[in-house]
Amino acid sequence: MAKDVQRRNSVFEAMHADGLDALVCYSPSDILLVTGYWPVMGASLAFLTPGGEVQVILPKDEIELAEATTAARLIPYQPETLERLTVPAVALVEPVRQLAQRLHLGNPGSNFKIGLHLEDGMQAVPYQSVNLFRESILTLLHDAFPQAQIVAADSMLARLKAQHTSTELGQMRRACDRAAAGFAAAPQAIVAGRREDEVAADLLAAFTRVANDGFERGHGMFFCMSGSNAATAAAAYARTRRRVLQPGDFVMIHANTTGDGYWTDITRNYIVGAASEKQHSMQSAIVEARDAALKAIAPGARASDIDRAARDVLRQHGFGGEFKHAVGHGVGFAAADANAIPRLHPKSPDVLEAGMTFNIEPAIYLDGLGGMRHCDVVACTAGGAEVLTDF
Amino acid sequence: MAKDVQRRNSVFEAMHADGLDALVCYSPSDILLVTGYWPVMGASLAFLTPGGEVQVILPKDEIELAEATTAARLIPYQPETLERLTVPAVALVEPVRQLAQRLHLGNPGSNFKIGLHLEDGMQAVPYQSVNLFRESILTLLHDAFPQAQIVAADSMLARLKAQHTSTELGQMRRACDRAAAGFAAAPQAIVAGRREDEVAADLLAAFTRVANDGFERGHGMFFCMSGSNAATAAAAYARTRRRVLQPGDFVMIHANTTGDGYWTDITRNYIVGAASEKQHSMQSAIVEARDAALKAIAPGARASDIDRAARDVLRQHGFGGEFKHAVGHGVGFAAADANAIPRLHPKSPDVLEAGMTFNIEPAIYLDGLGGMRHCDVVACTAGGAEVLTDF
Repeated sequence: MAKDVQRRNSVFEAMHADGLDALVCYSPSDILLVTGYWPVMGASLAFLTPGGEVQVILPKDEIELAEATTAARLIPYQPETLERLTVPAVALVEPVRQLAQRLHLGNPGSNFKIGLHLEDGMQAVPYQSVNLFRESILTLLHDAFPQAQIVAADSMLARLKAQHTSTELGQMRRACDRAAAGFAAAPQAIVAGRREDEVAADLLAAFTRVANDGFERGHGMFFCMSGSNAATAAAAYARTRRRVLQPGDFVMIHANTTGDGYWTDITRNYIVGAASEKQHSMQSAIVEARDAALKAIAPGARASDIDRAARDVLRQHGFGGEFKHAVGHGVGFAAADANAIPRLHPKSPDVLEAGMTFNIEPAIYLDGLGGMRHCDVVACTAGGAEVLTDF
Repeated sequence: MAKDVQRRNSVFEAMHADGLDALVCYSPSDILLVTGYWPVMGASLAFLTPGGEVQVILPKDEIELAEATTAARLIPYQPETLERLTVPAVALVEPVRQLAQRLHLGNPGSNFKIGLHLEDGMQAVPYQSVNLFRESILTLLHDAFPQAQIVAADSMLARLKAQHTSTELGQMRRACDRAAAGFAAAPQAIVAGRREDEVAADLLAAFTRVANDGFERGHGMFFCMSGSNAATAAAAYARTRRRVLQPGDFVMIHANTTGDGYWTDITRNYIVGAASEKQHSMQSAIVEARDAALKAIAPGARASDIDRAARDVLRQHGFGGEFKHAVGHGVGFAAADANAIPRLHPKSPDVLEAGMTFNIEPAIYLDGLGGMRHCDVVACTAGGAEVLTDF
């Protein structure tokens, strides 16, 4: 860090406010947050230390990627060679010890507090496999900083992730734009007689052709859920099957995509052929609920009120019981984290601030019949809601 | 568990041999191993307890998926509702306590040993975000089993994952067959003037159209690396860029795909137009190295000898220094885990056994110029090597 000076300042201010002397990050999206570099294999460690230094110990293989995205001091190590078989937690012992010595932190006294992500939470995945340190991270840190106190930095990291800098907002806008290319292929792809997986394949391909435009690494998932399968989208996850599309079917397209660690969460609805009266009334209710939510968004607004605005509309249209989840949650450093701040949930204590990005996803799920969800990525700005998925 | 009786037996035998009274799994591929069910969100826990009971506490949303794949007793819980905001580690406290009581394990005495995955290692990712328990898993278990000793089950789990049952081998064969559909699109897709991301999109689409044929959840990544970008494939990860293919280019296609948690790791090589003499000689060397490795595969063979067989051939052809990594590693419960047994590495202590599956990936990387890697998924059988990616 920090090409993004705004972020650099917010992190060190938060550390100071929380009484942390140092912060160590190992989860890829935490490292992205504090440095701008999104690790691939999950075998990197970021150290933010007194005096405002930011250092990353990272696999030699990832140096080029990191240099393109961060101004942090980069310390490469070799997780594996032809000469030895080992795991990152072992290969990191020496580089971490050396860093502690160089920073004169080998024995900083028992008042020295290191913040670490310690508790349960979602992690966005940067690759198809990712290294997990598990208990080894504590062993590593106790070895290099034997006197230090290790304390949970979870809520500080969650608060920092909630509010995006203008650089990060730019990345979010670009990520949403790339995802839009996938959805642009939907009208042609959704045709009676085709299977869900054929539709999903077309959209994923359209996205993949532009996913790396302006990003080092762009990838994602597109899902197609038709007919009664669309009702199952109320779950925490989406799933494409092989159902054949029929005239009159509900078709829900859901996507989660990323550009360099900034994520999107987008859903759109289609009907195969002409919509029925019932489908029209569902569409109207969802559009109206979305508008009510968007209108309520402003710095200072209570997150629970955004949920209520949408929920009231759906209830008035007779779909209160069919809207089974909260109207949104923070989106940015992860796509699918229901606990990312701000939680736009009936019981949420959160208050909106400018720079927060989240989804707005009013939905109606009719078990066994179908479902509709319209999910946008939205930023809270001084002037109200900015829809990043305005298509 | 266990629709797969062979696996059920191997797990309980290993627990007995290692002196474990119980085993608790939270990483999705560990749960797949011991139950047959591959969690989506990473918020499930599997308990293997004295008397041979297998129980899974899992999100309500994942019951249908689990029922299709496991015979374990399933205990649903609700990670989040409209009435409360919480995280899985908190929502799980009561279900885990109740399970401990029902099994009369609330206070089993200090000799009671629970095995847990505690150390550093790769995890295959089931979705675009995954729940990580981090330190909370220990808090959860100490709360429900206050007297028990928690010990590392890491090496036991790694050994169990190395040797596949016949059911698992069937899944691996099917997963490889689905990935083959992506590669079948390569000859048409690889044309001078097209970009790497356009090529990758075509292959990913071809795979996606069949990824769910015979699986509940099939997905994956296809990468295209051309010209000098192919040289960077020596890294631990692959990456598609936007380079335009030129006549005479090396083109490397790499894929990691999964069907229900069983992974593939496949690379093929192409030349845009006619191959040069040098490219022909590289191709021959790689084919010869592959054949030497395959020939050396048999139960009882030393894993390091398989590496040497391929490495000797490449050295004889003058490419010793350009073959920068080991010839293979275990593939199955993850695609990209260099430490998965058997490690076909010069320093490996592993010995091949029937039922092991791994990749064989002889390669030549010419910095700044290009590269070639041929990567197959191979099973060790009583009769020698079975190539699961025979296309």
